[in-house]
Amino acid sequence: MAMTRERAADARRYAALPDPFPMWRGGALHGARIAYETWGALSAARDNVILLFTGLSPSAHAAASPSDPSDGWWEGMIGHGCAIDSGRYHVVCVNSLGSCFGSTGPASIDPATGAPYRVSFPDLSVEDIARAGFEVLRSLGIERAHTIIGPSLGGMVVLAFPAQFPGATRNAVSISGTAAASPFAIALRSIQREAILRDPDWRGGSYTDERPPATGMRIARKLGMMTYRSAAEWRQRFGRQPAGPELRSPEPFGPEFAIQSYLEAHAQRFVRAFDPNCYLYISRAMDRFDLAAHGASIEEVFARSRVERALVIGVESDLLFPVDEQRALSEALRKAGAQTTFAPLDCLEGHDSFLIDLERFGREISRFLA
Amino acid sequence: MAMTRERAADARRYAALPDPFPMWRGGALHGARIAYETWGALSAARDNVILLFTGLSPSAHAAASPSDPSDGWWEGMIGHGCAIDSGRYHVVCVNSLGSCFGSTGPASIDPATGAPYRVSFPDLSVEDIARAGFEVLRSLGIERAHTIIGPSLGGMVVLAFPAQFPGATRNAVSISGTAAASPFAIALRSIQREAILRDPDWRGGSYTDERPPATGMRIARKLGMMTYRSAAEWRQRFGRQPAGPELRSPEPFGPEFAIQSYLEAHAQRFVRAFDPNCYLYISRAMDRFDLAAHGASIEEVFARSRVERALVIGVESDLLFPVDEQRALSEALRKAGAQTTFAPLDCLEGHDSFLIDLERFGREISRFLA
Repeated sequence: MAMTRERAADARRYAALPDPFPMWRGGALHGARIAYETWGALSAARDNVILLFTGLSPSAHAAASPSDPSDGWWEGMIGHGCAIDSGRYHVVCVNSLGSCFGSTGPASIDPATGAPYRVSFPDLSVEDIARAGFEVLRSLGIERAHTIIGPSLGGMVVLAFPAQFPGATRNAVSISGTAAASPFAIALRSIQREAILRDPDWRGGSYTDERPPATGMRIARKLGMMTYRSAAEWRQRFGRQPAGPELRSPEPFGPEFAIQSYLEAHAQRFVRAFDPNCYLYISRAMDRFDLAAHGASIEEVFARSRVERALVIGVESDLLFPVDEQRALSEALRKAGAQTTFAPLDCLEGHDSFLIDLERFGREISRFLA
Repeated sequence: MAMTRERAADARRYAALPDPFPMWRGGALHGARIAYETWGALSAARDNVILLFTGLSPSAHAAASPSDPSDGWWEGMIGHGCAIDSGRYHVVCVNSLGSCFGSTGPASIDPATGAPYRVSFPDLSVEDIARAGFEVLRSLGIERAHTIIGPSLGGMVVLAFPAQFPGATRNAVSISGTAAASPFAIALRSIQREAILRDPDWRGGSYTDERPPATGMRIARKLGMMTYRSAAEWRQRFGRQPAGPELRSPEPFGPEFAIQSYLEAHAQRFVRAFDPNCYLYISRAMDRFDLAAHGASIEEVFARSRVERALVIGVESDLLFPVDEQRALSEALRKAGAQTTFAPLDCLEGHDSFLIDLERFGREISRFLA
């Protein structure tokens, strides 16, 4: 199920990855590519690049641009005069390796067979996503990023990037990320994957475009929403309001509360927008990530990475990537000698706060970049 | 799928409910019964009864007794010299109406048709579970309980009980309960139900004993476990330990971490132990419960209920029934004139702490009963 965002405009560009592209846990890709978008001009000294990694499911379309004026997933954060100022920086956002919005992933054609990879795609790691971003910079003739930024999965990728390529970025901003997934996060993601794997329509990964494992994807997305937001936000926003009449059904056990309608709307959008096998691969990569595997300790890994300055942002209401994990990250960065700012924010919206509370996140990011 | 606990010994007794037994949201049951177990002797004055309601899935077998020496679900809490002292009290634990361990529920035979009710069982409410417990006491010739106690769902039932039967208990102990489910809890439970409803083996409720909706039940139980325990406990207990070799499989995306083995073991036990339709009915009843529906406000409901003393226990790490909800309950009870103790405990084990930290819960309960 190759996913294309249905827009008249398309700002994507493509970088060919080295052939072969070795994968961190073994195997290699041939003829692979990464989709990316850019904002702002590259300076003559090539020293103003901000490389942006995404969460699990977004595309490279982080913000509107002349070639694609539709809103991006971080609209308002990136642009002229925004916190990530395209008047000053050349911003490059990559669609993750393994995803389905133009970059090579399980839904792409395997050149060796002429058919989609599906579950024959090699094991995917957070390290591979970082390496693919590094190769995009290389393809643009850039030796060193000014700053790498990433939220959620992206917040893990910005740790894996300098761990593999010391000196390849001067600064790093890790937002609501972690050095290693907790058992709670692993539990959540493995239940999401199980819902997909046990959907009869998954068919061992060989589902059709007409009949994707929609039930599994719906349940996975609804579960995701539970941990992306917060109980306090939902209490304020939905309380015990009844569901709208459009969702009331004569079926037994149909939706009764507004919170159920909200989850249903999100789930329906997601089923149409994301490839199930890509979801499985990226989700598992998040479980497996463990920065400490790159050295004797995460302090030692950071010391080798030559990151000069770091900003670590976390949110007190985050269930999935709890703020203690970002606190530990920032302490390790400090011990390793990076000039580190830790910003624990008390936003209401949980893990997804970076998408919503642009004012507070923007303030931290622009202060760091100033 | 009529569930019977496979034990040689059986301490259950049965109380016939009035025929018809009117249900709170409409409809009525005919020839219904409640299974219960007892510990300790009834005093001559019939004034030493403790009525115990359970969480969503336990049976009436809360503790060992001469007629059934196997461990119960609250073993160590009930017995001679225990916090709930059977040397002093006549303890009665009821299997909830709608459950599948001897009480009438969706898996029982509908006398009107001779076939199991399944989804033709009338709407079940927390109020009905409370009323069924009240009828058990009446059948034993008891006018007034000394104390009603309940954890989780039971913590809701002990609120619905005096709201419907003012004066029918002197004291109430609500453990990790709430006056109304939050949208977060509703979201969680509705996703659990959806996993069952969309399992092709659910078959509109007409599954067979040989082929229950096992996938849906497994996912529902795993999700439940995520919210019954806490992220902090799992970090301490499992960390990122690998799964045991018995679970490693050649299937793609098989379990890799110990936390996945733990969830799997719990899920497998649950599929064999609980009836899916009963699960759906009781789960929905928890979503719908709203004590405020019984009066102008919960203070007013409590004032009418004539509860003299109350103990409200909550756990700081509870995701599903957050401690703020128990704090609000205890404040309303105080305002209504009940002599109220609020015990917020900082146990690590989340919502299920009452099953694990018997020492701290026992101390609060025995102090209250002293």
